[in-house]
Parts: sequence; structure tokens; C-alpha cells
Amino acid sequence: MRIDIITVHPELLSGPFSHSILKRAQERGLAQVVVHDLRPWGLGRHQQVDDYQYGGGAGMVMMIEPIYNVVQHLKEERHYDEIIYMTPDGKRFDQPMANRLSLQENLMMICGHYKGIDQRLRDMLVTLEISIGDYVISGGELAAAVVADAVIRLIPGVLNDETSALTDTFQDGLLAPPVYTRPPDFMGWKVPDVLLSGHQAKIEQWRLDQSLQRTKERRPDLYKKFIENDHANQKP
Amino acid sequence: MRIDIITVHPELLSGPFSHSILKRAQERGLAQVVVHDLRPWGLGRHQQVDDYQYGGGAGMVMMIEPIYNVVQHLKEERHYDEIIYMTPDGKRFDQPMANRLSLQENLMMICGHYKGIDQRLRDMLVTLEISIGDYVISGGELAAAVVADAVIRLIPGVLNDETSALTDTFQDGLLAPPVYTRPPDFMGWKVPDVLLSGHQAKIEQWRLDQSLQRTKERRPDLYKKFIENDHANQKP
Repeated sequence: MRIDIITVHPELLSGPFSHSILKRAQERGLAQVVVHDLRPWGLGRHQQVDDYQYGGGAGMVMMIEPIYNVVQHLKEERHYDEIIYMTPDGKRFDQPMANRLSLQENLMMICGHYKGIDQRLRDMLVTLEISIGDYVISGGELAAAVVADAVIRLIPGVLNDETSALTDTFQDGLLAPPVYTRPPDFMGWKVPDVLLSGHQAKIEQWRLDQSLQRTKERRPDLYKKFIENDHANQKP
Repeated sequence: MRIDIITVHPELLSGPFSHSILKRAQERGLAQVVVHDLRPWGLGRHQQVDDYQYGGGAGMVMMIEPIYNVVQHLKEERHYDEIIYMTPDGKRFDQPMANRLSLQENLMMICGHYKGIDQRLRDMLVTLEISIGDYVISGGELAAAVVADAVIRLIPGVLNDETSALTDTFQDGLLAPPVYTRPPDFMGWKVPDVLLSGHQAKIEQWRLDQSLQRTKERRPDLYKKFIENDHANQKP
């Protein structure tokens, strides 16, 4: 998989992609993230990339031409499965979307800033608008990093132990159960007996019970969906 | 405001906090983000910070002692309004939570990795568990950066134009209207006439209509809530 990210702040993305899992994925040739600085595509002597918004009001808008030109340039080199714009009014990113995107070959991500990009770019070029949640952050960079991380770690071979991603929260529609490690007793705070019992069937039952209980308490919306699906699966 | 972040990958956070708005907020003395490397608090010669989980299964768990020790150390120096653990099964981060956190003095954020931190730390120390969305990423670092960004930009004086944050998506419960900037015509794609009219009242009405329409189409859940609140406000 290749991900091209277009941004006016390439330096914001230097940390996330040069360390940890994302670095390893790139070293193993499983994923490639290429960050493109929009600035050289800016207009005129000042390499302008943003301007005041029509109709007045606070906040700048990112101009059409620089983004249009860099996107066209990239599209000449390869076909993109999705041209993604990171925006809080986009489709909410979730685990099923991460799973789906992890099967793609080439993704492009456009990071907005200020009030966002000119609407015409969204109408003309963008094929998928993604929001990472119902809040506003200062630019699309962190959002793009979040999506790239969630997607790349699902590519087989990226995580050392592939079963690890399968037991994550959300993969089965439930929150993950609590986890414990040594020591068994820390200042009187103890690990639940069942986890020390060595009785694997009881441990699995305990984990499922904990998952169900935690999901019911914390996320009744997910719990309801899980119970409905579970019920549907059991139908003859 | 001061935010202390505890992580095994401090280098992941070097980009987001040393550039752009977060850098400016720190230069102006409005916010301070201090990243603490957990590794020196690790146990033994290998500075161990994680271990296999009790009960078996894939994925490591972050141990109690290193995190407990660094948190105690930090708590001796100042009072924390919240000790936050970033986790996908936490309370979903949203704009009201960002607004609330932006009023606090001192926040601590613990970044998990692998399968997460030992449950006893969550029971003992953590006062607030936050999820940035229904998906799994490789660690809490990007999530902590997202929350810090969303919170810090709300502190008065951080954004150059304070009205800018107030017109963001979500601040009034609606998605923001489309934005446009020059040129007025790009290869036949035109800016809506009303925005060029100079008639401010008509522009504001158009923007509200667009916000309502976009919210209704894209986020019927938010639209419903907005209409209900709006109706409630109009009651005598």
C-alpha cells in the first residue's frame, strides 16, 4: 500500500511515520507513506496557498489551484483508489472503514487547515471525506496520521503477532476485556483469580463476560448492535 | 495550561508539539506540553515496561510499576485536574469535552501501547478515560496529540482570530457551511452568487441554510439534537 499525504506542514508528520509500527511497515516494504509539501505548489512569489473567504468572516480558506495541481501531478503517476479529504464534517472513521481501506493499493490524503479547502475541490476531486471524530483540531495532519496508522497496522505482516489485531476492541463489535500482567499483587491490588487458574476455558468465558459487561456499561449503542447481530446469526 | 504526557515513544510526539499552533501556544506561554519518556522508569537492567498478559493470549500489557512511579513523581510536583488514559474503550472525545478540558490547569495523559495498561492502574490512578473514536491505533500517542491540539487551540489567545474557533463545526451543534475563495471561476466551477453579492444578511442566511442542510444529510443524529434544543430554547 502507498499513501500520499498533501500538507502545508510536512514537519508535523515527521514523528508518526518515522518510528514504531509505521516505520517497521515501511522497512518491510508493506506500506509506503509519502508526504508532499504543498508550499512549492503555492501561487506567485509568496507561494500563496490560502486566501480570505468569499462572503467575509474569520479564517482563511485553502485555494483550489495549488491542491488541484499537485493532485493532478500525482494522478498522472498512478491510479488512486480514494482521494481522501480529512474534515470534521466527513464520514466518521471507524474500524470497518479501516478494514476496508487496508485492502486498497493507493490512497491520497489531503490535509486541510484554517477553515478548510475551497468547496469546489471537494466537489471536483475528493472521493471520500473522513472525520476522525466530533471535534475540531488545527489541521488535517494528525487526522491523516491517525487514519494511516489504523489502516497500516491491519496489513498482514505489519504487526508481529497477527492475532493481536484480531482481539482488539471493535474487531468483534465489543470492547476488549481488562488485561493484567505481573506482579499478581501490587500494594493489595490483585489480579483476578481466574486469570491465574490456568483453566483456559474459564479464562475465555471470563473475558467474554467482561467484554459484554464493559460494552453494556460504557457503550450501550455497540452492545445493542452486538446483541441484535448475535441474535440474527443464531436464526435458522 | 500544562499537559504532561507519559509515553514509551516520545519521538512520536516531537512533530505535533514543535510546530504550528501548538508551538505558538507554548511560545506565548499559554500552554506547556511536557513529554515524559517512560523507559527510564522501566524495571531492571533492561528497563522493562511491558510483560505477557495473565491468562495468556497475544499482545503485551504495560506494567503497573513504571507508570505508577512516574505518575507519583509528577503528582508530588503539582495537582492534576485529570489523569487521562487514552483508550478506545474510553469516553468518546467530542467538542464539549474539549471545551471543558480547555478550562483546566494541569492535565496528565498516559499513552498505552500493545494491549494497553494493567487494569489496576486504571482502577487506582486514572480519573478520565478518553477515546478519540471507534477504531484502534497502535498507541496512545497520536490520540494524546489529537486531544492536546483540540484543547489547546480553544485557550483564548492561541488562535490569532478568536472568532475563528467559535464558527467551527460542532461549536453550535451544526456542521460548518461550505467555504470558497478566489478565483470566482475555476474551469467553469463557480462560487455561489450570494457570496459575491456583498449582502451580509443574505450571506448569513445562506450559510445557516447550508449548515442545516449539510447536517441533516450527513449527520441526522446531530440535526435531530439541534432541532430539539432549538425548539426547547424557543419555549416561553
